[in-house]
Amino acid sequence: MDYKNSANFYKNELLNNVVPFWENHSKDEEFGGYFTCLDREGKVFDTDKFIWLQSREVWMFSTLFNKVEQKQQWLDMALHGAKFLQKFGHDGNLNWFFSLTRDGKPLVQPYNIFSDCFATMAFGQLYKATQDEEFGQMARNTFRNILKRSENPKGKFNKLVSGTRPLKGFSLPMILCNLSLEIEHLLPKAMVDETIEKVIQEVMEVFYQPDSGMILENVKPDGSFSDSFEGRLLNPGHAIEAMWFIMDLSFRLKRQNLAEKAVEIVLRTLEHGWDEKYDGIFYFLDIKGNPPQQLEWDQKLWWVHIETLISLIKGYALTGNEKCLNWFEKVHNYTWSHFADSEHGEWFGYLNRRGEVLLPLKGGKWKGCFHVPRGLFQIWKTLEILK
Amino acid sequence: MDYKNSANFYKNELLNNVVPFWENHSKDEEFGGYFTCLDREGKVFDTDKFIWLQSREVWMFSTLFNKVEQKQQWLDMALHGAKFLQKFGHDGNLNWFFSLTRDGKPLVQPYNIFSDCFATMAFGQLYKATQDEEFGQMARNTFRNILKRSENPKGKFNKLVSGTRPLKGFSLPMILCNLSLEIEHLLPKAMVDETIEKVIQEVMEVFYQPDSGMILENVKPDGSFSDSFEGRLLNPGHAIEAMWFIMDLSFRLKRQNLAEKAVEIVLRTLEHGWDEKYDGIFYFLDIKGNPPQQLEWDQKLWWVHIETLISLIKGYALTGNEKCLNWFEKVHNYTWSHFADSEHGEWFGYLNRRGEVLLPLKGGKWKGCFHVPRGLFQIWKTLEILK
Repeated sequence: MDYKNSANFYKNELLNNVVPFWENHSKDEEFGGYFTCLDREGKVFDTDKFIWLQSREVWMFSTLFNKVEQKQQWLDMALHGAKFLQKFGHDGNLNWFFSLTRDGKPLVQPYNIFSDCFATMAFGQLYKATQDEEFGQMARNTFRNILKRSENPKGKFNKLVSGTRPLKGFSLPMILCNLSLEIEHLLPKAMVDETIEKVIQEVMEVFYQPDSGMILENVKPDGSFSDSFEGRLLNPGHAIEAMWFIMDLSFRLKRQNLAEKAVEIVLRTLEHGWDEKYDGIFYFLDIKGNPPQQLEWDQKLWWVHIETLISLIKGYALTGNEKCLNWFEKVHNYTWSHFADSEHGEWFGYLNRRGEVLLPLKGGKWKGCFHVPRGLFQIWKTLEILK
Repeated sequence: MDYKNSANFYKNELLNNVVPFWENHSKDEEFGGYFTCLDREGKVFDTDKFIWLQSREVWMFSTLFNKVEQKQQWLDMALHGAKFLQKFGHDGNLNWFFSLTRDGKPLVQPYNIFSDCFATMAFGQLYKATQDEEFGQMARNTFRNILKRSENPKGKFNKLVSGTRPLKGFSLPMILCNLSLEIEHLLPKAMVDETIEKVIQEVMEVFYQPDSGMILENVKPDGSFSDSFEGRLLNPGHAIEAMWFIMDLSFRLKRQNLAEKAVEIVLRTLEHGWDEKYDGIFYFLDIKGNPPQQLEWDQKLWWVHIETLISLIKGYALTGNEKCLNWFEKVHNYTWSHFADSEHGEWFGYLNRRGEVLLPLKGGKWKGCFHVPRGLFQIWKTLEILK
C-alpha cells in the first residue's frame, strides 16, 4: 500500500469534494443554521433542522479550522450554525431539542441525550477556534447536564417500565469516550481522568463480552447477557466506531494493551458482521442468529463503513497488525466503489444488501456533514503518519 | 376466475394451514398467553408478549368460533389469551401496556393507543362468543377510554412540542372505522352511529386528498397538506386496508357511492404504490417523490398484500368494477408465490424489494395470528358470495 498516495487521496476527497459540497449546499442564508436534507445533487428537499446534524456541522467546520487550516470561511460557516443553535437549539436550560423548523421553532422535545452530546462537541471545538468564553460555557454546562442525565437519559420520555428488565445502552458510554477527549480543554483534569477511566471500563468490561469477543448494544446492569431483542442486538458499525475512540484513549494514556484489545474487537466484529454473500458490513444482527427487529438490518450504511476504515487504519498504525491493513484495503474498495458518487460528489448514505442505492440522498434526518468528512480527515492524518 | 375454486382455496389455506400453525406453535401452556416470535418452522425464538398480538390472537380465535364454526378448541384458545390479558395486560385502569415479559410483567408503558384498540376488538368478539358480561365490560370501558384519549393518544409520551406543527394521524380514525362495527353490539346505537359518521368523514374528507386521489398518513388539523416528512408520507397498504373498512360501512349504511369512492381510492393507491420493476406494493412512499425517512420503504410486507386482496375482492363484490378483479389476480399471484411458505406453512412477513425473504420469521413483534387468517377469512367469505 502506498501510504503517501492514499493520504493524498483521502485529503483530496475531503478538501475538494466533500467539504465544498456542504459549503455549497447546506447553508441557510435566510434563517440561519444548515439544511441537511439534500438530494443527490445537493438540492434541499426538506428544511427541518435536526440538532444532531446542526451541531455536527458546527463541530466539523470548527475542526477543519482548528486542525487543517485557519480559513475564515470555515470559521464563518461554523459560527453561522452556532448562532442558530444558541438562539433556538435548547429550551433555556441547555436541554437540547431534537429538531426545529427551518426558522427555529422547536418541533421535537429534548428527549434524546445525543443532541446534547453533539452540541457539547460543537461548542467545545468552536471554543478552541475562537476562545470565546460564551461557547466554552455552553459546552461545559451542557456536558455537566449530560452527566446528570446519564442514568436515565430519556427521562419522562422513557417508555420502559422501570425495574422489569433493567438494561444499559452502549451508545452513551461509547460517545463519552470520544467526548471526554473532545472537551478535555474545558474541564478540570480530575474530572476528565475520572470520566475516561469510567467509560473505558464500561466499554471494555461491561459491554464487551469475552465469550463472543464482541460488544453488545444493551446489557444487564452487571454487564451480563439479556436474552431479549435488545440484549441480543449487535450493531457492528457502532462497536467498531467505539474502538477508534478507545484507540485514541490508549494512545493518550500510553496503554498499548488497550490498543491491542481494541484491534482484536474490531477484527472479530468485522469478521462476524461482514456480508460474505454481497460484501459490506451489516447494519444490525442478532447475536444468536435470530431475526432482528430492525427491518433495515441487512442494509449497508455509509457511517458504518467509514468508521470501520478509521478503526482499521488507526489499529494498524498503533499495533502494526497486518490484518488491519488487509481489511482496510477490502473495506476501502467496497466503500469507494459503492458509496462515493462520482457524478455529484459526496456519498450516498443508504445502500441495500446488494450495495445498490436505496435512498439517493446526500443528507437527511441522520446523515449530514459529519461521518464522511470526519472519517476522511482521520484517515488522511493517520496515513500521513504511516507514509 | 373460478370463484368457487378460489373460495375453497382461501378456506383451505385458512383452516388447514394457517390456523393450525398458530394452534400448534403459539400457546404458552406454562405462563398463559401466546408466543408470537416464531421462526420459519414455528419454533419460539423470543418470549416477550406484545399486547397488539396477544389481543389480535384472542380476536382471531373468537372470530373463528363466532363466524366459522363453534369449535370448543377455538374458544378455549381465545379464552387462554384473554385470561392472560385480563390479568396482566393493563395498568388497572384499562390503559393497555405495549408489551409484557413471558410471565406477564409489564415491560413497555401504555403509550400506544392501538394496544387498547386491539384489546377492545378481542374482548368485544369474545363477548359475542361467550355472552360473559365481564368481557363485554372490558371492551366497552376500553373503548370509552380510547375515545377519551383520542385527541392526544400518546399523552405524556408525546415527544412533539405542541403547537409548532400540529398534525393528525390517519391510523386512529382508520381503525375506528373497523372498531365501531366490531363492537356495535356493545354500544348504544346513537354512539355507534355518531362514531361511524365521524370516522367516515375524517377518512374520506380529511385524510383523502382530492388533488392526488390518495390518502395521506398525516395532515394538518383542517385536512390540508403539510410539506414535511410526516405530511408527505404515504403508506399504501394502510390506505388500501382502510378502504375495506369503508366498504363494510358502505354496505351497512347502503351507500353505494361510498363504496364506489373507496374502490377508486384503492385503485389509485395501488397504481401509485405498485413496484413496476420488481412487482409488489411498496411499504412507504413520499408523495413528492423525495426519499422517505423509513429505511424499509421499498420492502414488501405480508399485511399490505393480504389487506389489498381483501379490498380488491370486496370492491369487486360491491361495485362490479373489473379493474378490481384484474388487480386481484395480479396481487394474488404475487402474494402466493412470494409470501406463502409451502414447506413450513403460514407466510413470511418481510420480503426485500426483489421479493426475497428478508426475515425468515412467521411471527415477531408485529406479525402474529391476525392479518393472514383474517384476510383469508374475509376473502373466502367474499368469494363465496360471488360464486
